[in-house]
Amino acid sequence: MKNRTAQAKPLFINSENMGIATDLYQLTMAAGYFACKQNHTSTFELFVRKLPQNRSYLVAAGLEQAIYYLTNLSFPDTYVQYLQQLPLFKNVSGDFFTYLRKFRFQGDLFAVPEGTTFFANEPILRVTAPAIEAQIIETYLLSMICYQTLITSKASRVVHSAQGKEVIDFGTRRAHSPQAGVLAARASYIGGCVGTSNVLTAYELGIPAIGTIAHSWIMGYENEFKSFEDFQKVFPENTTLLIDTYDSIKGAQLAATIGKKLKGVRLDSGNISLLSKKVRRILDSAGLQQVKITASGDLNEYKISELLRKRAPIDSFGVGTEMVTSKDSPALNGVYKLVEQEVDGRLIPKMKCSEDKVSYPSKKQVYRFFDKSRRFKKDIVGLTDEVHDAEALLLPIIRSGKLLYPIPTVQKAQKFARENISHLPGEFKRLDCGTSYPVLFSKSLREIKERLNRNLTV
Amino acid sequence: MKNRTAQAKPLFINSENMGIATDLYQLTMAAGYFACKQNHTSTFELFVRKLPQNRSYLVAAGLEQAIYYLTNLSFPDTYVQYLQQLPLFKNVSGDFFTYLRKFRFQGDLFAVPEGTTFFANEPILRVTAPAIEAQIIETYLLSMICYQTLITSKASRVVHSAQGKEVIDFGTRRAHSPQAGVLAARASYIGGCVGTSNVLTAYELGIPAIGTIAHSWIMGYENEFKSFEDFQKVFPENTTLLIDTYDSIKGAQLAATIGKKLKGVRLDSGNISLLSKKVRRILDSAGLQQVKITASGDLNEYKISELLRKRAPIDSFGVGTEMVTSKDSPALNGVYKLVEQEVDGRLIPKMKCSEDKVSYPSKKQVYRFFDKSRRFKKDIVGLTDEVHDAEALLLPIIRSGKLLYPIPTVQKAQKFARENISHLPGEFKRLDCGTSYPVLFSKSLREIKERLNRNLTV
Repeated sequence: MKNRTAQAKPLFINSENMGIATDLYQLTMAAGYFACKQNHTSTFELFVRKLPQNRSYLVAAGLEQAIYYLTNLSFPDTYVQYLQQLPLFKNVSGDFFTYLRKFRFQGDLFAVPEGTTFFANEPILRVTAPAIEAQIIETYLLSMICYQTLITSKASRVVHSAQGKEVIDFGTRRAHSPQAGVLAARASYIGGCVGTSNVLTAYELGIPAIGTIAHSWIMGYENEFKSFEDFQKVFPENTTLLIDTYDSIKGAQLAATIGKKLKGVRLDSGNISLLSKKVRRILDSAGLQQVKITASGDLNEYKISELLRKRAPIDSFGVGTEMVTSKDSPALNGVYKLVEQEVDGRLIPKMKCSEDKVSYPSKKQVYRFFDKSRRFKKDIVGLTDEVHDAEALLLPIIRSGKLLYPIPTVQKAQKFARENISHLPGEFKRLDCGTSYPVLFSKSLREIKERLNRNLTV
Repeated sequence: MKNRTAQAKPLFINSENMGIATDLYQLTMAAGYFACKQNHTSTFELFVRKLPQNRSYLVAAGLEQAIYYLTNLSFPDTYVQYLQQLPLFKNVSGDFFTYLRKFRFQGDLFAVPEGTTFFANEPILRVTAPAIEAQIIETYLLSMICYQTLITSKASRVVHSAQGKEVIDFGTRRAHSPQAGVLAARASYIGGCVGTSNVLTAYELGIPAIGTIAHSWIMGYENEFKSFEDFQKVFPENTTLLIDTYDSIKGAQLAATIGKKLKGVRLDSGNISLLSKKVRRILDSAGLQQVKITASGDLNEYKISELLRKRAPIDSFGVGTEMVTSKDSPALNGVYKLVEQEVDGRLIPKMKCSEDKVSYPSKKQVYRFFDKSRRFKKDIVGLTDEVHDAEALLLPIIRSGKLLYPIPTVQKAQKFARENISHLPGEFKRLDCGTSYPVLFSKSLREIKERLNRNLTV
C-alpha cells in the first residue's frame, strides 16, 4: 500500500500508469492464463449489443487513442511491485511478474476507421493476440472507444438537426473529467462540429478554438455598454457579445451601437426562438445584416430542430452538456467478447450463452452493400473469408504489435464521417429513430452459431 | 497550428497542459481584463442551481484534485506561443503573454470538505482572487468538482439502497474516458463503496482493489469445471467464480464441488432475485454457508432496493455503468458565478439576472443547524459575517496561493460522508426524493439581492 502524503493527487492518466488503469480481474486472469498455460492465441471483438435509446446509427471514434495505448502499453516496475505485494497475488509465481515487466502488445488489430457509420452487433474492432495480451487491454479499449463513439454519434445527430448551421462544442465544463472534455471536443469535431471551446484539443489537433465572453465579463463592469466597448477594443475583429446578462433586447440594442465592427451576438437564456427574431430585427434595422446570432444554453438536437422549424434566425449553435454527456443516452453498451481461440493448431469458435447476452462466435467481418449512387443498402456480418460484392469495413491496423495504418487527421476523419452519413438513407437519420437499418448475419455464421448452441445445450 | 505527425496522440491531461484544458473564452476574458485594467479582486462561487432529477441531496467531492490544480497551475511557453499566434489574439499586447508565462494562482479558496452533504443553491467552493486568476480556473474546477460530486452523490444513493450490503465499483470500462474511470472509483469510494475494480485508483489511494474473473476465462476452456478448478489453484484464498456463462444453476453446482475453499460466486445475468435464492440453496446444501453471492449486471439503486425487498440472498453488489455515468442524471448543473468585486477599495455585490438564471450576490457562507442528536435541521445561506448558532460549512483551504488545509485521505472523506448522511433525516434520503430539505436565505442576503434587483430594473 502506498503511503499517503499531504500532497494533493491529480489522478492523471499517463503512458506509465495506463496499463493498470484497468479492472483488477484482467490481471488476475492474466496471472491465471500464465500459470495454467492457457495463453492461447485468442480473438476478441468489440461491438455494441443494442443501439442506445434514441439512436438509429452510431459513428465510430477513438481508434487513434486506442492505437496509442496498444503501441505504448507497458507495466513499469512500481506498479508490478504493487501488484506483487497484494495478498490476492501471494500464490502467483514470480515468473508472471517478470513477464508483466517485459510486457508489450504483440498482437493484431483490425478496426473500422474513425467516422465509420455502424450499427448494433457489428464488430468495430477485432484483436487477435495471446490470451493475456488480448484480455488485459479490454477495459481501457472499451472506455476509450465507447466514450468517443458515444459523443461522435450524438454530435452527428446534433449537427444533422442543425441543417447546415454551425455547431460548436461548448461542453468541456460539464464533461465527466478534464480528459473527457478533451476527448469530447475531438469526438464532436469528428461528428461534424466546426470547432470547440477546448483550447487544449484545438492545440493538439489543429482544429478551431472558439469562444468570446461569459456573463462575468459584463458583470465586472458597472455599465453593460462599457463592457462591450472594452471587449471590442481588445478583440476588434472577433467581437461576439453575450447579450442576455440583464435583458437580451436591451443587450442587443447596446451591442448594435458598436456598429459594423460587431461580429456576432450570443443568446444564452430565455425564449431563444422569440428573442432571436427580435434581436435579428434590431441588428438589421441598424444595418448590421452581417452580424451573426449564436445560441447556447442546454441545447440538443430536439431543441435545435424545433428552433429551426420556428424559423429562428440563428447562425450557429453552441452545444455543451447534452452533447458531451450524451445526456439522453449517457452510456454505450459496448462489449469486448472472446469469439475464437487457437488451441493446438485448431481454431475453436467461442460464444457466451448467458440469458439475453448471446453473442456470435468466430472472427467476423462487416460487409456493407451500396446501391448505384453509393447509398447504404444493407450490412452483412459474416466470417472473415466470405466473398461478397460489398465493402469490408474492418481494416488491418496493427500487425504483430507494429502499426501499419497511416492514422488520418481528425479533419480527414470528420470528412469521412460526413461522407458516410451522407450515404445513409434519410429514413435512418430521423431524430425519432423510426426505422432500423438492415443488419443481417451470413449463412455460414448462423450455421456455426447453431452448431455451438446445440453442443452447449446437449 | 501544430503539425500533425504519423504518431497517435494519447490526449492525456497533465500538469503542463491542464492550464489550457479550458474554454477559450477564459483566456480572451483574461486578455481583456489585463488590457482594460479590470483585474479587480473578484469572488466567484461554485454551486448547483437545481438538484438533478431523482436526487434529494448531493455529496461534495473532487476538492483534492481542485487543490492540485490551483497549487500547480501554470502556462508553459509552448502553449503561450500557440495562443499568441492565433489570429484572435493578434491585437493583444505581448505583456499579457509575459503575464501568462509567469502565472500562478495567488488567491484564496474556501470549500466544504469532501463528503459534505449539500443542496441546491449552496456554494460549496468560493474563490477570491484577481479577476484573471479567478476567471481562468472556472472550466477545470467545474469539470473536476461536478463530475466527482455527481458520482459520489449517486454512489451514496446506491450504497444507501444496499442496506449495509457491500457495494463495489465495477464501472471503469463504461466511464467517460480512462480518467473518468479513475475519478469515479475515487468518488464512489467516498460515497460509500467498499472498493473498486480500478487498479490505478486502488494503487494511488490505498483502497481495496476487487475482482476475479470474466466470462472469457471460462470460455477459454472446453470444460467449465476445469476453468473453475484452474482458477482456484492460482487464487486458492480468493476464488470467486462467475457462474452464468452457460447456465447459472449448473454453474453453481459445479462451483460448489470446489468445496470449502470457494470464497464466492458471481451472478451477472438473468433473473437475479430468483437465481440468487436457488444458488444459495445449492451452496447451503453443499455445506457452503460461508460462500458469498455477488450480483452484477446493470444494477442501480432501484434494482438493488427491489432485490432486497424480494429477500434475494446477495452479499455484495458490483455496480458499473449506472453509477459511473450517473445514468439517470448524467450531469450536474454546476455553475461558477461572480458574486462580488473590489473596485477602488469598495466591495460591490454582483448578480446575474438572465431569465431563470438569477443568482444571489455577495460572499456567502452556508450555516447548518443541528438538533440535539446532531440531525440536520435546516441550512441558511447567508453572508460570511453573520452569526448563527450553527456550523459554517465552507472552510479556508488556500490563502494567497498557499495550501493551509491538511488534505484528508479518501478513507477519512468516506467516513465524513457516512457521518454526514447518517445525520440527514431519513425522509430526505428516500429514493423517490419525496421531500426537500429546507435551505433558507438569510435576511441580510435577501435585502442585498432586492436592492440590486431594484437598481437593475430601474
